[in-house]
Amino acid sequence: MKYPATIQNLMECFQKLPGIGEKTAERLALSTLTFDDEVLEVFSNSLRDVKTKIKKCERCNNLAEDSLCEVCKDNTRDPKILCVVENPKNILLFEKLGTFHGYYHVIDGLISPLDGVNPEDIHIPKLINRIKEEKIEEVILALKPSVEGETTSLYISKLLSNTNVLVSKIAHGVPLGADMDYVDSLTLELALENRKKISNDD
Amino acid sequence: MKYPATIQNLMECFQKLPGIGEKTAERLALSTLTFDDEVLEVFSNSLRDVKTKIKKCERCNNLAEDSLCEVCKDNTRDPKILCVVENPKNILLFEKLGTFHGYYHVIDGLISPLDGVNPEDIHIPKLINRIKEEKIEEVILALKPSVEGETTSLYISKLLSNTNVLVSKIAHGVPLGADMDYVDSLTLELALENRKKISNDD
Repeated sequence: MKYPATIQNLMECFQKLPGIGEKTAERLALSTLTFDDEVLEVFSNSLRDVKTKIKKCERCNNLAEDSLCEVCKDNTRDPKILCVVENPKNILLFEKLGTFHGYYHVIDGLISPLDGVNPEDIHIPKLINRIKEEKIEEVILALKPSVEGETTSLYISKLLSNTNVLVSKIAHGVPLGADMDYVDSLTLELALENRKKISNDD
Repeated sequence: MKYPATIQNLMECFQKLPGIGEKTAERLALSTLTFDDEVLEVFSNSLRDVKTKIKKCERCNNLAEDSLCEVCKDNTRDPKILCVVENPKNILLFEKLGTFHGYYHVIDGLISPLDGVNPEDIHIPKLINRIKEEKIEEVILALKPSVEGETTSLYISKLLSNTNVLVSKIAHGVPLGADMDYVDSLTLELALENRKKISNDD
């Protein structure tokens, strides 16, 4: 005996989500039985719309429902500063801060020759074109501090080395509130290397 | 800036699922962008069908797409034995074993005066009627070993005390493979109380 087909299908779909195993999928599928009709309606419609309504912003590759994303539609931002991120999720992180007022560019991946990901496979050519066309003055690289992230940052900064664009990278070091015992040695090495003089004038 | 409405809605729906917080909901919603069209179609349709297609079996309250569930439709089972469970999920557990060949009765809850759940609120009257009508000879109570579960088991067995129905309860004790250090004292007490004589004849 199995569950009715609808529940069985739902369980299989939930299992395709990251980090959801068989038991959790069963629990989630059964929990939908207690949902309000409206919630199920919205849930169902949203899933149907995911492929049809969600596009990539033509300018920055962020998720969008129109040709431009919400950030690119905002004319009050500083058009001279561009923050380069790996994926749309990272934009949200910066937006939650509320302190960055430039635009973004999603490169949708990181250079990784081992996985066969070359600069052309991610949106680096589009980024370089955009920087030239929009006369960007400052580029902030906010990529993951991994081998792939560092390689990508280095590659982009090399491509821009013979231009007047100011290229910077977000700081790596010991995160605030971290227990020193648990900071890995590579992070500690970087933190030591990038130490800052404490000025008594401040 | 937020995600496009479709993603935002999807995140909110995922958050309504048990054990799914804000961060996980975001990850799950974004992961659907990589799904195949067919999967999204099935996922969306199943959610839409949950309320319309899934009913309760008229006989045992199990989940069903017709008036009777798959177990009740099966005529090869022993009609004299009934296993009483709290919810449809528990039926699956027994069915996976494959050793129980009677029918089930889902009471959909446990007696809990503190939460305002009385015997009439769960399917106990229906259970008692069914036992009489179908001339059930043996009732196995397979409810949770909690205060509510024990109360419910006791209540049902009292209702059947003046009949010829054989009422039993599944055994409680130390689970197989459990580390003795981690067995709670109540379980250990029960296990001691229900100790079994080891016969040398076996």
